[in-house]
Amino acid sequence: MSAMGDNIDNLTARVADSGITNGTVGQGEEAVDSTNADIVTPWTVQTSSAAGVDYTKLIRLFGSQPIEDDLLRKFEQVTGKSMPPLLRRKIFFSHRDLDQILNTYANGKPFYLYTGRGPSSDAMHLGHLIPFLFTKQLQEIFDVPLIIQLTDDEKFLWKDLTLEKANELAYENAKDIIAVGFDPEKTFIFSDLDFMAQEPSFYWNILRVQKSVTYSQAKGVFGFTESDHIGKVGFPAVQAVPSFCSTFPFIFGDRKDIPCLVPCGIDQDPYFRVTRDVAPKLGFRKPALLHSGFIPSLQGAQTKMSASDPNSSVYLTDTNKQIRDKINKYAFSGGQQTLEEHREKGGNCDVDVSYQYLRFFLDDDERLEQIKQDYSSGKMLTGELKKELITVLQKLVEDHKERRAAVTPETVKLFMTRRKLKFDYPAPAKTK
Amino acid sequence: MSAMGDNIDNLTARVADSGITNGTVGQGEEAVDSTNADIVTPWTVQTSSAAGVDYTKLIRLFGSQPIEDDLLRKFEQVTGKSMPPLLRRKIFFSHRDLDQILNTYANGKPFYLYTGRGPSSDAMHLGHLIPFLFTKQLQEIFDVPLIIQLTDDEKFLWKDLTLEKANELAYENAKDIIAVGFDPEKTFIFSDLDFMAQEPSFYWNILRVQKSVTYSQAKGVFGFTESDHIGKVGFPAVQAVPSFCSTFPFIFGDRKDIPCLVPCGIDQDPYFRVTRDVAPKLGFRKPALLHSGFIPSLQGAQTKMSASDPNSSVYLTDTNKQIRDKINKYAFSGGQQTLEEHREKGGNCDVDVSYQYLRFFLDDDERLEQIKQDYSSGKMLTGELKKELITVLQKLVEDHKERRAAVTPETVKLFMTRRKLKFDYPAPAKTK
Repeated sequence: MSAMGDNIDNLTARVADSGITNGTVGQGEEAVDSTNADIVTPWTVQTSSAAGVDYTKLIRLFGSQPIEDDLLRKFEQVTGKSMPPLLRRKIFFSHRDLDQILNTYANGKPFYLYTGRGPSSDAMHLGHLIPFLFTKQLQEIFDVPLIIQLTDDEKFLWKDLTLEKANELAYENAKDIIAVGFDPEKTFIFSDLDFMAQEPSFYWNILRVQKSVTYSQAKGVFGFTESDHIGKVGFPAVQAVPSFCSTFPFIFGDRKDIPCLVPCGIDQDPYFRVTRDVAPKLGFRKPALLHSGFIPSLQGAQTKMSASDPNSSVYLTDTNKQIRDKINKYAFSGGQQTLEEHREKGGNCDVDVSYQYLRFFLDDDERLEQIKQDYSSGKMLTGELKKELITVLQKLVEDHKERRAAVTPETVKLFMTRRKLKFDYPAPAKTK
Repeated sequence: MSAMGDNIDNLTARVADSGITNGTVGQGEEAVDSTNADIVTPWTVQTSSAAGVDYTKLIRLFGSQPIEDDLLRKFEQVTGKSMPPLLRRKIFFSHRDLDQILNTYANGKPFYLYTGRGPSSDAMHLGHLIPFLFTKQLQEIFDVPLIIQLTDDEKFLWKDLTLEKANELAYENAKDIIAVGFDPEKTFIFSDLDFMAQEPSFYWNILRVQKSVTYSQAKGVFGFTESDHIGKVGFPAVQAVPSFCSTFPFIFGDRKDIPCLVPCGIDQDPYFRVTRDVAPKLGFRKPALLHSGFIPSLQGAQTKMSASDPNSSVYLTDTNKQIRDKINKYAFSGGQQTLEEHREKGGNCDVDVSYQYLRFFLDDDERLEQIKQDYSSGKMLTGELKKELITVLQKLVEDHKERRAAVTPETVKLFMTRRKLKFDYPAPAKTK
């Protein structure tokens, strides 16, 4: 997972952050598309377009697959359930082997979900919440185990932070994640710093991955330079191994064949490209991936969020008043300069941050479409659009705060204890 | 610790091995002295001189301190005991901060010993045994805790070996080490692969070291190339952290100030150069070092030992007959071609492997000096010299086999259990 101060806020737990603080800007040049200068790496997401990163180009560059309507139809067919809005709206826009995971599920075979978060600050914001909301929907649809990795080690390696503080943040963030409403019988959350001293398979699998990746390969994928410390060079293996079920023998027993689906931000793809490359060499299954795009900062998709600027995002600790003021004052508007002009030409939903946020947080498709039509036609004004968003966000944050307050240390411990979940994994039959 | 097939056998647990099997020959060019082409790195020890590596040049190159007579006098003065023969004979020929350790001891302050071994094959040979014999003598003189690291993770990373096999070898080697006669109340032995999942401080300190060492520095010290895998790049931190007492809170409590003395082969110095460089930045004590030279292979100091050639060394599993045959047939002789010539010119002890081995294994100084005079003068013949060595080695190996056979799995478990030793470390007084 990622590191450093926030950059463009993304909707993923595997969050993209700015590399400015320690000079890593410019890493990952291989992912720079010179025609529009988008930069997408696990540590830097940067674009000069108000509409945000060009995802079509990114899919070409990364060599992943676009989410197409056929696949979405197959999703609903196989699951018999309606899909999460973020998938329907193609905010999760790209994948690797999602079709195979659907086949696995259709055949009654097991798989599991893995996502994670680099714990970066006490107060998580909206962008940090979405991937967990999404993953929870996936877990409910498929009824599978979910593994959540908190990369406190990574945060120590990339940020100016003590190990103690990074570990503390992992536990604080765990409370927010738990508040999303996960089922402790089906969900295992761990801190790397703690888990390393609990589960032998973790370090063993890390070594297996590290032995399979050359410095030259890591440099090519992640853009490491000679002045990067050796902790960074080895770290990709730490994020790789939760993709392998053998890292969790207390959950999956002796099974080596249970595939994994990783919902993550497209900026995290480099980690899993490496993981997918080494998996077959190690006798492990390649993880399947489901990639999301990024949620813009309040100031717009091309504006860098700054950890020192609380007005660039809505925090899960914000009051109703703070939310209202932030949206009214800072949310970048796609509306016209004057009322007359707006009524005549209409607003531009593609760059309007309030409308973009509603795409993430308003589940009602019909209402969203109505807003789009009204705002684009000029019938709806920017103030009215913002009011819609404020109502949605105030409820979301209030509900979250309430649930988070109810999370006790005992609950955290329950989720973070190395234990069997409620699923059984008998040894697979030799034939068939 | 080291890796791969044996090269020149050394007398250290931190054993130097050949890099031939995986193309790492040529690593560590910075330690090549072009005037005599000695190469000394943790993975390669190579010399073209029959008298072995030029240690005076190596001290200059590495920037360590020679063991001088003043320091040896201080050793006996401070300890009130006679020093180990290998120190008296300056086979341990170089150090860093040994004088400070002696001051620490003289002031009644605690320190501890740390050494280790890369478990490489079921059968250890004589060279592998010596550092443990030496360290045991140090431990008895100073009455301090001894930590022994078995770097099974390193062996997996460098050799063509499974993790399971490397871990198994660690336990086999532990039996040989225990058979040297260590006191379980004062000695902790651990396998990296096991200890990582037992002691949180191990991984935490590894991360602290990794964050303090750039790839460029590691490349400079160890000669890594871009085709080396990322496991190698990060590994030096694993060998570094047992130098810090905070890695073992179950032994040293909350103390951060207890210094460490590391007896090791000079080829292992790069690891501890890095360790000493980062220690102050992390608020830890720099480890002191005591460097040994290498024991030659039976064929002589410039001959490479080969894991596939059992005749290049004496194994701790060899029978009396095997020992006799190996020495008689293979031990490189410094004697003359004919009896007449030998009687006239005498033998050359500097290159005679049997004499060199006696320097390591015959504790009686007077007897050793007599042999040297007799052989050098031509009074003693090569066959007679070899007979002396055969007697010494047969007894050594027989005794070792007997003690090893008495080592039960319970004894191994006793030494390798994470536990308090018989030493107490109260929090230091704030003043004085």
